[in-house]
Amino acid sequence: MQPITEVMELFRHQRAVRAWSDRPVSDEVLRQVLQAAIHAPSGSNTQPWRFIVVRDQQVRDAVSDEYEAAQAGQSDGPAPRRASGTGALSRAPVLIVPCVQVPGRTGRAGFQTGASIYPACQNLMLAACALGLGTAMTTSHRVRRDQVHAILRIPGGFDSAAIIPLGWPDRAYGPNRRAPLDEVVIHDRWPD
Amino acid sequence: MQPITEVMELFRHQRAVRAWSDRPVSDEVLRQVLQAAIHAPSGSNTQPWRFIVVRDQQVRDAVSDEYEAAQAGQSDGPAPRRASGTGALSRAPVLIVPCVQVPGRTGRAGFQTGASIYPACQNLMLAACALGLGTAMTTSHRVRRDQVHAILRIPGGFDSAAIIPLGWPDRAYGPNRRAPLDEVVIHDRWPD
Repeated sequence: MQPITEVMELFRHQRAVRAWSDRPVSDEVLRQVLQAAIHAPSGSNTQPWRFIVVRDQQVRDAVSDEYEAAQAGQSDGPAPRRASGTGALSRAPVLIVPCVQVPGRTGRAGFQTGASIYPACQNLMLAACALGLGTAMTTSHRVRRDQVHAILRIPGGFDSAAIIPLGWPDRAYGPNRRAPLDEVVIHDRWPD
Repeated sequence: MQPITEVMELFRHQRAVRAWSDRPVSDEVLRQVLQAAIHAPSGSNTQPWRFIVVRDQQVRDAVSDEYEAAQAGQSDGPAPRRASGTGALSRAPVLIVPCVQVPGRTGRAGFQTGASIYPACQNLMLAACALGLGTAMTTSHRVRRDQVHAILRIPGGFDSAAIIPLGWPDRAYGPNRRAPLDEVVIHDRWPD
């Protein structure tokens, strides 16, 4: 394979997008970003994932209401009912919920389990960015994990890693900004 | 930004590489893959990461010995001493250990913390692949997390997400293979 230099530009252009144009998202572009996701690495190449693709407005509204309640710090009790379509996640044309299989009965994933699902999430978001689509990744829904799992009928033995809203962005976004590399690179051993 | 179609090919060509040629890895290519890493998303863009870049042979050998002991399922006791340079991680010219800041006193990360470090790991590995470098990602060292943290002097408040050996591959690798997309995509709600 020849070196792909443009990918370096891609990394610099991934931005969290949370506002959308009315342009519909085709099944074809969805398949492309999902294909990118499943080509990510996973522990022992077990590919322990499922991707719930939510287009149904009622399901998006229900998930969005739980997300808003989670953002407000309400871990239990019913989510406040909003006018349909007003929540941040309601407005995204597609929500993708990557789930990962977890051992044991609790259905709760640990830190290392993330190594088998978050690279797939990143591939999905990079592929979306390369196509001109916008995404963002939130894990805030996990404050109301049980409620969200009930809506999506996620079975025991799987945990939800994130919610990724996806659509065509409302506008052009510039490159992202980061702290200088030298502030976060350590050579050989952490200095005393 | 124009659509980057080549990135789709990149995803299909990421393979776990664990054998290396003698070609040296320059500081310049290392900087490129690390730049890719820090352009990944993180929760609220906190960029809560450090990347330990291990070139020192003694440190690599010590980490490699712990990794071999972890692979053998020995969570405590001293790592068996091997002839220097015989362990899998000893032979990689560079080891990268991505670490993530974690709240609280335990220094132990949870599932969601992974959303702020594994996308950076994936960017790093994709950038390496794009440049023709090989990588693999292991979390097995965490069986002997305390011992590895002692070697690298990782302070409380940070956790190690993975060890990523990096170098020029010993040979050409073909594309990766995955289960069909339709086996892992779910529409709207998990079926009963």
